[in-house]
Amino acid sequence: MNIAVAQSGGPTCAINASLTGVFKEALKTPVIDAIFGSVNGIEGMISDELIDLRPVIKSNEDMELLRQTPSTVLGSCRYKLPDADKDDGVYAKILENLTKHRIEAFFYIGGNDSMDTVDKLSAYLESKGSKIRVIGIPKTIDNDLPETDHTPGFGSAAKYVAATVQEIIRDSSVYSIESVTIIEIMGRHAGWLTASTCVLKANDEVAPHLIYLPECGLTKEKFLEDVRSMQAKYKAVIVAVSEGVRLPDEDRSDVVVDNFGHEYLSGIGKTLEGLVKDSIGCKVRSIELNVMQRCSSHICSKTDIDEAEMIGAEGVRRALSGESGKMVCFRRVSDIPYVITLDTVPASKVANKEKFFPKKWITPSKNGISEEAVRYFLPLIQGEVNIAMKNGMPVHFKL
Amino acid sequence: MNIAVAQSGGPTCAINASLTGVFKEALKTPVIDAIFGSVNGIEGMISDELIDLRPVIKSNEDMELLRQTPSTVLGSCRYKLPDADKDDGVYAKILENLTKHRIEAFFYIGGNDSMDTVDKLSAYLESKGSKIRVIGIPKTIDNDLPETDHTPGFGSAAKYVAATVQEIIRDSSVYSIESVTIIEIMGRHAGWLTASTCVLKANDEVAPHLIYLPECGLTKEKFLEDVRSMQAKYKAVIVAVSEGVRLPDEDRSDVVVDNFGHEYLSGIGKTLEGLVKDSIGCKVRSIELNVMQRCSSHICSKTDIDEAEMIGAEGVRRALSGESGKMVCFRRVSDIPYVITLDTVPASKVANKEKFFPKKWITPSKNGISEEAVRYFLPLIQGEVNIAMKNGMPVHFKL
Repeated sequence: MNIAVAQSGGPTCAINASLTGVFKEALKTPVIDAIFGSVNGIEGMISDELIDLRPVIKSNEDMELLRQTPSTVLGSCRYKLPDADKDDGVYAKILENLTKHRIEAFFYIGGNDSMDTVDKLSAYLESKGSKIRVIGIPKTIDNDLPETDHTPGFGSAAKYVAATVQEIIRDSSVYSIESVTIIEIMGRHAGWLTASTCVLKANDEVAPHLIYLPECGLTKEKFLEDVRSMQAKYKAVIVAVSEGVRLPDEDRSDVVVDNFGHEYLSGIGKTLEGLVKDSIGCKVRSIELNVMQRCSSHICSKTDIDEAEMIGAEGVRRALSGESGKMVCFRRVSDIPYVITLDTVPASKVANKEKFFPKKWITPSKNGISEEAVRYFLPLIQGEVNIAMKNGMPVHFKL
Repeated sequence: MNIAVAQSGGPTCAINASLTGVFKEALKTPVIDAIFGSVNGIEGMISDELIDLRPVIKSNEDMELLRQTPSTVLGSCRYKLPDADKDDGVYAKILENLTKHRIEAFFYIGGNDSMDTVDKLSAYLESKGSKIRVIGIPKTIDNDLPETDHTPGFGSAAKYVAATVQEIIRDSSVYSIESVTIIEIMGRHAGWLTASTCVLKANDEVAPHLIYLPECGLTKEKFLEDVRSMQAKYKAVIVAVSEGVRLPDEDRSDVVVDNFGHEYLSGIGKTLEGLVKDSIGCKVRSIELNVMQRCSSHICSKTDIDEAEMIGAEGVRRALSGESGKMVCFRRVSDIPYVITLDTVPASKVANKEKFFPKKWITPSKNGISEEAVRYFLPLIQGEVNIAMKNGMPVHFKL
């Protein structure tokens, strides 16, 4: 039998590690012959653009480089499958290509949109009497997938954000004048990544002094009141704010919507900067961590990369044992010592759904994160990968 | 005798390494008793806010942590000394405090503004018959100080920028649609840091496809023409642009000026993004590397940190040998192997001056950088510092 694997959605530092996991596990499995990579996610399965991966991932060194290369070497997509009831043309095309290449298992590394694809495609294949299995392998820096303790890609993003926010704290604290520094962190509707800046407490940092998630609710008045009260205690106030935070009366005219119905939000950092400038008048700067928080592999979390590889490998084992339409997930047994187990859940339980940051982990002041959350986050950012360097720069694997 | 050291201007990853160099060399020197740190640059010498450093930097571990901590542990300032002819009040205050604490040498780690202070203060002290020596130790991520091959702090910034731009290239290349990604890099008037992205060629990266420095000259028309011509070859076009690039007809109403007469520039990335959106219409994103490029010690250059420490130590030796009103500098003997020597120059030759990126290293198309520049930049980003980690995050030294 042959298998195929594809990558979808926004980049992370761990998607190629999950690909490595699928690839390595397949190499170990005598029943598997060719390992195909589908170019640009499911689009490659539709257009029959497949790469035979054995001849291109040639050595242990290649596998190690692939593991630590950010983004998706196979390319990505944001393609949403139509409802098969209404239009099964692309489904037929996918089935034709799977059959042509004797592919008996398809692995889709992605987020909640990709789990929609896993759910729909597996249902279609089953309805056609096909035995081809479809398994979802989670990834997202947003950590907002239901049914899993956390998502591969999140730990590396959180580690980058923690290190960078700590460096920005140093940078912001040098002058003798009052200042406010606002750091805008990714997270469309769920504030996990912004909340994770609370791990700095473990290294005796008091900042960020204010942490705002979409789950907090925020008004201009509360923000200014919070900043003023922190200014009474700290010369350089540091604010971490999720890109998804919206003020009630904000101008939303610049919101755009993608074909999954997602709104692209931006600019809350700039908005809060403007508020401080106008109403407080001290030195103020807003900083967007932008795509760096999802691709800064040079400071990825070893725990995250190892787990991403592990969950990819588990996907292969699950498919071989006959599971389909499932997403592999993590179950946490304990924080200290950190112990997780692997499981699967129906992809339908994850598709198009979001897991929000628990309200109980937001402090009553609605501008901070609890110690319990610190214990949840800390294990995910542990360990450093020995990054391969050449000419003073990381080496990336390229197809 | 006692000595004092202060840090000034914008943060870098290497200023604390130069402080470590001064401190360590002073420890080795039996004639030196107390080593004072002046809080917030020269302001601490005026207000008599000094910290006795021996009791706070207590161990080799402390020195190693200090070396790898970004920004300035002593705080910084942007204070410009008045002309002593017109107003010597603060000079008298500084002399009084220096004398009171038996300080016979003062070390000022900073950029071209700080060298103005070194020049003026040393001239004043000499005019008063004082034997107190004043030595400048260069730093700036901008690499724009005259009379030195390069500046401490630049190599670490360039290494961060190279690693990050490479990761952004991976991130930007995942989708099958055309896109333009514009990365805005620091550099007020001189494009050194933006130009340094050319080192990616050494690791077989084709991008950034377009590199624009303030020294290039750029118009809207040329920019759009360049982008279109790159789009004929590359699906995902990557542009590196210096924050100091100005389009001739751009609205400059948001420019603000500090008390050194510097204009704060911002927004060229957003401006170019708007041009692509309006005139080309493809997917476009602009990314500001912001303060991360000057404080991301977690990926600092070992060469830079070692040299910053070395030049700090040399400052102490020069002061003891009787030099004053000088800045310590690097002379490059060769690129391959990389050999530098240390020297001094009169601070007046550096004060308030800028060294621009050589025109001969800009390609005739005015959107690229030559191989000769790659050879200049590469040695500066070599080597990694073994960063101390705790709880998965770098450990910073705090006073």
